[in-house]
Amino acid sequence: MKRVLSGIQPTGAIHIGNYLGAIKQWVEIGEQLGKDALFCIVDYHALTNPDAYDPKRLPQRTFEAALANIAAGLDPEKITLFVQSHVPEHTELSWIFTTQTPVGDLTRMTQYKDKSAKLKSVPAGLLMYPVLQAADILIYKADTVPVGEDQLQHLELTREIARRFNHTFGDTFPEPKALLNPKAPRVPGIDGAAKMSKSVGNTIELLEEPASIWEKLRTAPTDPARVRRNDPGDPDRCLIFKYHTYFSPPEVQEAVAGGCRTAGIGCVDCKKMLFDRMMEVLGPIQERAAELRRHPEAVEAALEDGAGRARALAQETMHEVRVKIGLYKPY
Amino acid sequence: MKRVLSGIQPTGAIHIGNYLGAIKQWVEIGEQLGKDALFCIVDYHALTNPDAYDPKRLPQRTFEAALANIAAGLDPEKITLFVQSHVPEHTELSWIFTTQTPVGDLTRMTQYKDKSAKLKSVPAGLLMYPVLQAADILIYKADTVPVGEDQLQHLELTREIARRFNHTFGDTFPEPKALLNPKAPRVPGIDGAAKMSKSVGNTIELLEEPASIWEKLRTAPTDPARVRRNDPGDPDRCLIFKYHTYFSPPEVQEAVAGGCRTAGIGCVDCKKMLFDRMMEVLGPIQERAAELRRHPEAVEAALEDGAGRARALAQETMHEVRVKIGLYKPY
Repeated sequence: MKRVLSGIQPTGAIHIGNYLGAIKQWVEIGEQLGKDALFCIVDYHALTNPDAYDPKRLPQRTFEAALANIAAGLDPEKITLFVQSHVPEHTELSWIFTTQTPVGDLTRMTQYKDKSAKLKSVPAGLLMYPVLQAADILIYKADTVPVGEDQLQHLELTREIARRFNHTFGDTFPEPKALLNPKAPRVPGIDGAAKMSKSVGNTIELLEEPASIWEKLRTAPTDPARVRRNDPGDPDRCLIFKYHTYFSPPEVQEAVAGGCRTAGIGCVDCKKMLFDRMMEVLGPIQERAAELRRHPEAVEAALEDGAGRARALAQETMHEVRVKIGLYKPY
Repeated sequence: MKRVLSGIQPTGAIHIGNYLGAIKQWVEIGEQLGKDALFCIVDYHALTNPDAYDPKRLPQRTFEAALANIAAGLDPEKITLFVQSHVPEHTELSWIFTTQTPVGDLTRMTQYKDKSAKLKSVPAGLLMYPVLQAADILIYKADTVPVGEDQLQHLELTREIARRFNHTFGDTFPEPKALLNPKAPRVPGIDGAAKMSKSVGNTIELLEEPASIWEKLRTAPTDPARVRRNDPGDPDRCLIFKYHTYFSPPEVQEAVAGGCRTAGIGCVDCKKMLFDRMMEVLGPIQERAAELRRHPEAVEAALEDGAGRARALAQETMHEVRVKIGLYKPY
């Protein structure tokens, strides 16, 4: 692992599922790789999402995505954090890959088939999006990409695009490898549903007001078999215990599990203990976020700095690509 | 007609069919509009043509396309002549349009259906090419586009893309009109086939050696009914007379038509007269081309100058577009 590219959609508030599933891993990668850890807020991709995209809200959402990730531990002075559209070379490489990629390779993508089946009119951005994604990764010659299972097929397409280009025009791009996160928990929603998800509306946001978080925890379901305070409960069937495993140290997990099974503690006690532990993690993040919100110019400067670094790398690759594909007097 | 965009594919030597059908009209447009006549050598489009595209030859072909058009009368000091890839903003706007254009609008294009039907593996560039073409035109807010009949459908798509963008994001782009050239002849090939075409190999090139042009004329078919020198011929059934109508003044056309009908002149005489008239047009073009070939740096400088002008216009539009679609802090 020498250089990593990871994309973040600026489509709304970040929740604790994102934090535990992805951002914590990014922070570790950033600590390991420094400037070769590239984190890209993919606003060009956001345009392909007709549900989430709103031109009036996109600038603020892009800013918020940067702010939340910095607050959560991505240090823009150490790593490279930038906005995709500040490096428009991504779209140029995407066009070049478009000319080399069979339509059939794109129409057979599972995500395309699933998403387009639900739409009356399918925007071409939905079809072409994995090609832009390949450009996002390959323009930095990233060798590693942290992905979820649902992105493995798109990353395989990126590898094919790299292979095809290298075969046609000479060795240029590495074939990037997927970095699955075995530690990433599948965080259930606060309603008890299998997955926390913004579109379902069952999230706890990273920057949510403590009072609002407590209200969500207070009213969250627990083991349905534990009806009265004196009934013993089963932590393995309880959402709140699941959350304890993310936020509480082992000794607290043991104490609440024991207390639950023996009815030694009530669900409200257990939720209060979770809330305290959760705020031990979220509190400092929220303090950093509040501090950054008082100094938006610091976030802007960090993004400009990141874009400068990313663009220098992108332009180097593009010069090489332009020469290899035979553009005239490439600048 | 305030601003015109016209694209030229750098796919090979320009022939007299191109000259009579398009370049003469461009020269007139350039004289009328000056710098608002934009002529773009579309090398990014050339990548979508798997038959004609060769990375090793593309730089030279791009240079030759510029040289031939300048020699034919496009004055790069008066008009704006540039290479598409020197203004990479075209690909950025193309991506933005891609997110707004239904796949179905692209798959129903007649050219796409025709070309893709002949291919085993269809490159996505063939599908997306009309979207890049829309960006080529709209990034300059051109109101007029000289086109052949075969491009009318693509221009209609450009108008739809402009309309859709204006509707979604506010008035931004004009809906460009087609400028058909009623004076453009459909020049037959030197083999007598209906159309001169590089892919058929029946062309007379604009910069072809006079001896080679003469050899092609000398062996070209004439009225098949005129077998012997003394047989009278029918100019209306003769390829050579057709060419006289492009290159010879009316009195010469009358003289050869009369001479043919009465067998007063032979076919070789008639061809010599055509050759002389043709070289009166091509000779000065070829001299200018030879002069430019001795000073390639002048062609390079002209293209750099044109790219600078075009890019300034393109960047102005892109700034407006980036703000309207909600990109964060657009540069």
